[in-house]
Amino acid sequence: MTSPELRAHRLGLTIPDYSDPPYGGRYGIGLKAFHRVGDFVELSGITPENRAGERVHPGVVGADVSVEQGREAARVTALNALGMMRLAVGSLDNVVGLSRALCFIRTTADFDQLHEISRGATEVFTEVFGPVAGAVGRASVGVTSLSRRNCFELWLSFEAAAVGD
Amino acid sequence: MTSPELRAHRLGLTIPDYSDPPYGGRYGIGLKAFHRVGDFVELSGITPENRAGERVHPGVVGADVSVEQGREAARVTALNALGMMRLAVGSLDNVVGLSRALCFIRTTADFDQLHEISRGATEVFTEVFGPVAGAVGRASVGVTSLSRRNCFELWLSFEAAAVGD
Amino acid sequence: MTSPELRAHRLGLTIPDYSDPPYGGRYGIGLKAFHRVGDFVELSGITPENRAGERVHPGVVGADVSVEQGREAARVTALNALGMMRLAVGSLDNVVGLSRALCFIRTTADFDQLHEISRGATEVFTEVFGPVAGAVGRASVGVTSLSRRNCFELWLSFEAAAVGD
Repeated sequence: MTSPELRAHRLGLTIPDYSDPPYGGRYGIGLKAFHRVGDFVELSGITPENRAGERVHPGVVGADVSVEQGREAARVTALNALGMMRLAVGSLDNVVGLSRALCFIRTTADFDQLHEISRGATEVFTEVFGPVAGAVGRASVGVTSLSRRNCFELWLSFEAAAVGD
Repeated sequence: MTSPELRAHRLGLTIPDYSDPPYGGRYGIGLKAFHRVGDFVELSGITPENRAGERVHPGVVGADVSVEQGREAARVTALNALGMMRLAVGSLDNVVGLSRALCFIRTTADFDQLHEISRGATEVFTEVFGPVAGAVGRASVGVTSLSRRNCFELWLSFEAAAVGD
Repeated sequence: MTSPELRAHRLGLTIPDYSDPPYGGRYGIGLKAFHRVGDFVELSGITPENRAGERVHPGVVGADVSVEQGREAARVTALNALGMMRLAVGSLDNVVGLSRALCFIRTTADFDQLHEISRGATEVFTEVFGPVAGAVGRASVGVTSLSRRNCFELWLSFEAAAVGD
């Protein structure tokens, strides 16, 4: 069986390193990337920004951000999520399965192609973890505003391999 | 003690079967109905749609959807949640207790009767599980947009009976 | 090591008692303050209201609520969260660490200082639990509406000390 780390390598994915510099500085003190209770892990909110803070397609989907651009932002966010999973459990190979992905999308009130944005994120997960471990529960929610005018934010939980496995 | 399955039967509730056809086809690949870690279960986003995709009162609460219609949509969503719980743990009798219900409601900016919508969902839970196991933590959040112009979406977690109990 | 309860006492924080009167009456039946599965605890939605229902700065941030007022509302909400943690696990000293804080903020569409509001809540957590146990994963989400026109609502999870520890 192909491992998630091997798949990510073969796909040539660019996955950021959240250990260097340490996660969280941009938004102030008191933030952390993840928390684990037993084998259940909750990740902090993930945005379409690189480690230098450069944003991918900030704005409002349905107004100044197109569906294609929103989907690309969601894809970049999912790549960031992979980096945060590595930080949390050491390796993507220690991810037993994803649990839920709550996708916040900054939209106009009449935009209704939310799932076309969110699938930019969830497609990354099936590419890397396969169709079973990479499947998620999902909701896509249109919101008025997100931090730093980002158009997408991901709120993800997953199951980690038991320590010692 | 009356079991949740018996109560649901006596109430004559119409609960959809999410095993046939399999959950998730309408919104694309990579989605699943639930994930369980230990006895903690997270469900995917649940909308007021039947298995054929027919929606109950799509639109915006406070504009083209009334409070009564929104509450009915929330009630249908909760019935769908019961079906997803059955899919996740086999029977409503294997639900030890609900944990949290995050209720997204598509609203105008000045609508403030959110709890009148959400109680359409949470009343179903107390009818079926009783006042203790059916009680939930809840938040009601007004949003700009939801998938397929639905007016309501539920994000639910619960505790399942330990395997072997 | 200074305990969270001792820190809260020394800081002179006003933390409400959610056992008297019992939590939940204002929003109808079927609601509870928390649910615990193993050592993982999910709290119900928390708003900037005192036990009598008096709200701190209801309205829309970016319109009739300023950044300073929104931050104060977030701070009051976090103090309420401390009261709900006490209700859930008996004492703040039984909180091993916070997991995630999802911060809903009622905003105009062009408001982008969301993290300036949310830090009103997360600063309380580091004051009381210190920089490690008090750090959280966080997302700040602008929404159209919240219950009773509140400008802020918190959706928090945390890790409790194992029973018997």
